Amino acid sequence: MADRDEVRRARAYLLRVAEPPAGALHALVERVGPVAAAEAVRSGEVAGVVDEETSGRRALDLAAQDLADGAAIGARLVVPEDDEWPGWALLPLANAFRRGLRWAAPPLALWVRGLPLDELVQRAVAVVGSRSATSYGEHVAAEFGYGLAGDAGVTVVSGAAYGIDGAAHRGALNRGGRTVAVLACGVERAYPAQHARLLKAITGSGAVVSEYPPGTPPAKHRFLVRNRLVAGLAAGTVVVEAGVRSGARNTATTTAQLGKPLCVVPGPITSAKSQGCHELLRGRTAELVTSVSEVLEATGHIGELAARPDSPARATDGLGDQALRVHEALPRGGGSSPQEVAAAAGVPLERVRALLTELELTGLARAGEHGWRRATGGAPC
Amino acid sequence: MADRDEVRRARAYLLRVAEPPAGALHALVERVGPVAAAEAVRSGEVAGVVDEETSGRRALDLAAQDLADGAAIGARLVVPEDDEWPGWALLPLANAFRRGLRWAAPPLALWVRGLPLDELVQRAVAVVGSRSATSYGEHVAAEFGYGLAGDAGVTVVSGAAYGIDGAAHRGALNRGGRTVAVLACGVERAYPAQHARLLKAITGSGAVVSEYPPGTPPAKHRFLVRNRLVAGLAAGTVVVEAGVRSGARNTATTTAQLGKPLCVVPGPITSAKSQGCHELLRGRTAELVTSVSEVLEATGHIGELAARPDSPARATDGLGDQALRVHEALPRGGGSSPQEVAAAAGVPLERVRALLTELELTGLARAGEHGWRRATGGAPC
Repeated sequence: MADRDEVRRARAYLLRVAEPPAGALHALVERVGPVAAAEAVRSGEVAGVVDEETSGRRALDLAAQDLADGAAIGARLVVPEDDEWPGWALLPLANAFRRGLRWAAPPLALWVRGLPLDELVQRAVAVVGSRSATSYGEHVAAEFGYGLAGDAGVTVVSGAAYGIDGAAHRGALNRGGRTVAVLACGVERAYPAQHARLLKAITGSGAVVSEYPPGTPPAKHRFLVRNRLVAGLAAGTVVVEAGVRSGARNTATTTAQLGKPLCVVPGPITSAKSQGCHELLRGRTAELVTSVSEVLEATGHIGELAARPDSPARATDGLGDQALRVHEALPRGGGSSPQEVAAAAGVPLERVRALLTELELTGLARAGEHGWRRATGGAPC
Repeated sequence: MADRDEVRRARAYLLRVAEPPAGALHALVERVGPVAAAEAVRSGEVAGVVDEETSGRRALDLAAQDLADGAAIGARLVVPEDDEWPGWALLPLANAFRRGLRWAAPPLALWVRGLPLDELVQRAVAVVGSRSATSYGEHVAAEFGYGLAGDAGVTVVSGAAYGIDGAAHRGALNRGGRTVAVLACGVERAYPAQHARLLKAITGSGAVVSEYPPGTPPAKHRFLVRNRLVAGLAAGTVVVEAGVRSGARNTATTTAQLGKPLCVVPGPITSAKSQGCHELLRGRTAELVTSVSEVLEATGHIGELAARPDSPARATDGLGDQALRVHEALPRGGGSSPQEVAAAAGVPLERVRALLTELELTGLARAGEHGWRRATGGAPC
């Protein structure tokens, strides 16, 4: 089994080589592990979509330099093999990806400047909206950021953009709370430039996060790809203001597709900045919210179910009925074949195979030479 | 059978004697007819709840004077026996009353100043809201009133109050459209006083309507009783602004209880005047609307189904499946017993009895000495 540094270098390399979400590469990594996947990409021994995703930059082996550059600016590369990896939060992304939604591929790793990521997203809500917000929208976003970060102790996740995003981050910071900014560029970049001080403050009492290697400039398509991580890291999303073509609607749609609660703040019907919100509310996938307590009510359930990787007793709380049965059917020592697990759990074999992979991803099952056995949560290795 | 004048005098007397909605009296009138019911009340030959509803004022026989007073101010008493009676629109009230909702008793008659009531409510939408509206709310109410009354040709129904009601009426009038004001006092009263000119204008291109005899002053409880008629006469209701304790919420709840579409306009969550709207929208019985076309979409269905009493081919269009089958099973001449109808229609006997009463109310069935037979719509007599 590869050592942790080797794994980290492999994932750093792959993040540099493939433009996220790179679904085929993600699937390859899931199948053969990051070190073997990196080796195959580096030597050009990949075909089809993985080749398409990686051939353009595969010679760009900057892993060691990226890790050094990151360390120099106080950033670390958090990988799924780390205890800090918030696998339980990202599980809906992994499930959506397996259902065939290519855009939902979980990140291969995350660059982080700030506090431990797993603790930050233990109970997190995304607050997003238009860059060109109205004073009404900015007021509401700041109030919600302040209220969520307050007694509720919720981490406010957003995209550090002008308007709603910035107001939400600032609201949380003003309350002395925790907030996470997910960027569409390298974590060392101040983007937008006028948010340099804001981003610095976020690093101090939360984290700035990105799947893009240091030095990556922001680009239009990266904002949409980034949005899946905003929705993915949070237990639910609040849209405060959104025009008809706002990027926040993309985050909203993603949230709903991941099966996470989507809260939407209404506004005057005479305001173009609330038009996207009202369209979402008419679509009935969203819940109209007017206060922080309503947001907590809508998102609390999932937040409470999210298991801490260091509290094994609750590590299985987010699982569905069949997954729980498969987990229960696994032996604590030795190993079982998928067939044996299927028989013990009373779950179809095909489904057992899928669930075992899922449980392995979140560290709840391990495959050894004797077969599958139970793990108690935390990162697989 | 009583002649029309006798019926009108009887209903005028009963309207003066009993404070609406007077459910027990309504049921008595349904059972024995208005003339016999009036005679029983006048002579004190009623007991129980009907007695409670009528004993206080039964000596007050002002029918002839009320009809003369009404005529002097250009008002007429429209009774269910008139062609002008909008029985099809009020059917949901009658049904709710039969289901046990006492407050839903249909009016015994309606005082009307203006155009024929049946034509006015052929396609009507109620627009209601707070008296102490914001400029945002009044702007939206006026726009909706204008838009509904425009190309859509919808009659705007409201309560002539300050704020949203007045703005909605004015919007319709500004478009040269039709609007109906339902009052909680006599139709000759200018209430509120500053709406005297508005009410006069409404009489000219629509109607002022009330179940209270001329001279009746407005009273707090009458506004709630009046609200059932606002909801009852319209195909659906739009709430523009409503505080938490607004009377408009009462109209909204009534609309939903009658099974009619309830549309609600959102506003800033920072506005107390939109708080009631947002609570309604969170309750999920309401549909969020941002434009006239969305209101038409939500209410159009019912509006289109509403049958004109003078177009027999469509008189049955508003009926449910079982009611249609019962109607079809009725002979055109002679008569059938409820048992025979139940067998022919394939509908349970108990349900057939209820539906026959319902069909009789809207003039689609008649009970004669040979049993039940079909009628082709219009008022029963």
